[in-house]
Amino acid sequence: MALRQAVDWSLYVVTDAGLSRGRSHVAVIEAAITGGATVVQYREKHAPTRQMVAEAQVLRELTRRTGVPLIVNDRLDVALAVDADGVHLGQDDMPAALARRLIGPDKILGISASTLAEALQAVQDGADYLGVGPIFATPTKPDAAPPIGIDGLRLIRQHVSLPIVAIGGINATNAAEVMAAGPDGIAVVSAVVAAEDIAVAAQELRAMVNASRQRREAASN
Amino acid sequence: MALRQAVDWSLYVVTDAGLSRGRSHVAVIEAAITGGATVVQYREKHAPTRQMVAEAQVLRELTRRTGVPLIVNDRLDVALAVDADGVHLGQDDMPAALARRLIGPDKILGISASTLAEALQAVQDGADYLGVGPIFATPTKPDAAPPIGIDGLRLIRQHVSLPIVAIGGINATNAAEVMAAGPDGIAVVSAVVAAEDIAVAAQELRAMVNASRQRREAASN
Repeated sequence: MALRQAVDWSLYVVTDAGLSRGRSHVAVIEAAITGGATVVQYREKHAPTRQMVAEAQVLRELTRRTGVPLIVNDRLDVALAVDADGVHLGQDDMPAALARRLIGPDKILGISASTLAEALQAVQDGADYLGVGPIFATPTKPDAAPPIGIDGLRLIRQHVSLPIVAIGGINATNAAEVMAAGPDGIAVVSAVVAAEDIAVAAQELRAMVNASRQRREAASN
Repeated sequence: MALRQAVDWSLYVVTDAGLSRGRSHVAVIEAAITGGATVVQYREKHAPTRQMVAEAQVLRELTRRTGVPLIVNDRLDVALAVDADGVHLGQDDMPAALARRLIGPDKILGISASTLAEALQAVQDGADYLGVGPIFATPTKPDAAPPIGIDGLRLIRQHVSLPIVAIGGINATNAAEVMAAGPDGIAVVSAVVAAEDIAVAAQELRAMVNASRQRREAASN
């Protein structure tokens, strides 16, 4: 519970083996944390379970040492095996209410929502935060729902008080515009994991999120 | 515990979507149980987790109604989600000792073993039964270890008192020979799920296992 409340959602970095230019998940996440990632998600769809558990165990040690929450995508078995801080589930993954029963009340449960209806259902099912998107079209998830745009994000923000991270095609050219719609942070894949210098890319995005937050706070005073 | 001790391992049928001639996992398992399958394993490697959970839930109801244990291959998350009777793990799946901690003492833990060393390790890690093989070369698992033959099965049988199901290329032409090496039962994929009449194929194999058992008991008297 304490952990769930304390999470800084500013810069949420998601792994993608196919976009990482041959760098390991561990190398990518280590550099992303160095650059200022505040949450990391281990997403791996193809490796054998034993390899997933081994990689997630190394990430678990790294994220404990650096104080960054570790979320596992889809695979609740892997999350439980390494005592990750939580799981992130898409609409094709395990139903959220069932996942909550299996992980217990203290683990973080994140749910992907592309529509207001999905967002409200996720709140009801016990989500701790929402991944809202895709904001823009993205090549990293060919099976993703159609982009919802900044307006779609703003609509969900108006109806949901849970933490929201915006995801889908977000990079340094549009991060400020996205943050202006009110999410708690941005989730990125290729903008960080495909960057030549991962730490620098993360640092730049983190600075943009921080600046957006300061503008927002200044505007509300 | 009661369940673990009471399992009849005679005919253990494993699903395979690619071999089932377009029939659903549920249709295949229902026919296999009608024919005499004594244990069924839900094995699905490619479907989204939500679909796996939905299919396994239907199998859970069917197997409860018919009193047949339901084992889930690899995916401990799916097994926990539907309260399956156990999980079956290969050497590339979650390490057995870790899986035992997550499923608790009462669920069935099955481990694949291709060598005596793997079999002895699985015993040490808390396995409840072993899937030993592949006995023969099999087209259903192109990534399988080299066949260990009847002699490999007999060697492991001599050193392991846990229940053993032999697997890999077993069908009506060789089931009697396999059973003569002393396993508690046979596990089959294509010999049942690819059969034109699944119930008849299962019935034939079950009768062969029963006959082998009777010969064995007669010989030991």
